[in-house]
Amino acid sequence: MEATYVALCKHGYASLRMQDIAAESSKSKGTLHYHYDSKQELLSAFLEYLYDSFAARIDALEADGPDERLRALIETVLSPRDGETEQEFRTALLEIKAQGPYDDEFRVQLEAFDHLLHERLESTLLDGQERGVFRDDFDAESIADFLVTVLNGAQTRHVAVGHPPEQTRAQLLDYVDRHLVATTDADAANGTNDANAAEERSP
Amino acid sequence: MEATYVALCKHGYASLRMQDIAAESSKSKGTLHYHYDSKQELLSAFLEYLYDSFAARIDALEADGPDERLRALIETVLSPRDGETEQEFRTALLEIKAQGPYDDEFRVQLEAFDHLLHERLESTLLDGQERGVFRDDFDAESIADFLVTVLNGAQTRHVAVGHPPEQTRAQLLDYVDRHLVATTDADAANGTNDANAAEERSP
Repeated sequence: MEATYVALCKHGYASLRMQDIAAESSKSKGTLHYHYDSKQELLSAFLEYLYDSFAARIDALEADGPDERLRALIETVLSPRDGETEQEFRTALLEIKAQGPYDDEFRVQLEAFDHLLHERLESTLLDGQERGVFRDDFDAESIADFLVTVLNGAQTRHVAVGHPPEQTRAQLLDYVDRHLVATTDADAANGTNDANAAEERSP
Repeated sequence: MEATYVALCKHGYASLRMQDIAAESSKSKGTLHYHYDSKQELLSAFLEYLYDSFAARIDALEADGPDERLRALIETVLSPRDGETEQEFRTALLEIKAQGPYDDEFRVQLEAFDHLLHERLESTLLDGQERGVFRDDFDAESIADFLVTVLNGAQTRHVAVGHPPEQTRAQLLDYVDRHLVATTDADAANGTNDANAAEERSP
């Protein structure tokens, strides 16, 4: 899986060959073919591995309540894990997304990612609404869906035109402050709100 | 250009050959090569043609004021022009976006698209703020950038997981109603706002 990651970053999806993956691993091309019939099958296993890592990563996020959890989810998706290869890796993932309509295996994996992110965002929003941390005048399912769209857009623009994901991260955190976080009566009386409070908390 | 469109829809970007484009046109492969050195060069000309069509299309939008213009821009980007081939075409465009980091010609064209959309959204938002149609407490440049990200995300999810662009369209129009449109004093007194007014206007 590590060799697949490195090979994908180096060669991109379209021109990637089993041989390129073997070259990055301690296994021979023959051994790879013994386990995986095709590049598609190996990459499908790789996407499953990515899904598991991503799920483990977001479920291990430490957050004090739904407001912090929502911000942590946004930051996790929009923060590069590995500066040097992140751009190459994102590009390969976008190539794979463009295979969605042609490859049922990829499609299933891509849908699983989409649903996972959607589900975690929605349950966080619902939790926050129940606890009165978030406003109750929005539809959590629809806003979760909207946020998944924004996160996809940030990744696409990063690859296509070099748009900085940090910019979308800042815009989304501002969106959370202005439109999702509930303003308490005390905040209103003090002429302050959770947005300012969040700003004061940050380093 | 029409032949390139048809061939892209049929074959996608990665496996497209000059021959496939010639097969859809009245020109021979030799004639195509006479005008365009490579597939990249022909596709770059095609992207320029798409840019010009898109610019002409959004500049010809008829709208009564900035609020209507903003909605018309969103609807134009998120409405399929050609139902049957739209999905194939969007897929090919996503493949081309994934080439952004590798191909300087494509990158220039992709950036031009991004800037065009950003500029038209920003000037519409500024116009609306000046006329008091939109709230004055947001940064037009940043919101325009955010909207471009959302529109990119809708297109990516449409291709990757079949997410319906109409859903993002509805969410964005709701976003405009709730967060961008200025609430007038009269609206506040009547317990209504432009959101409801817009709803009443639509069929």
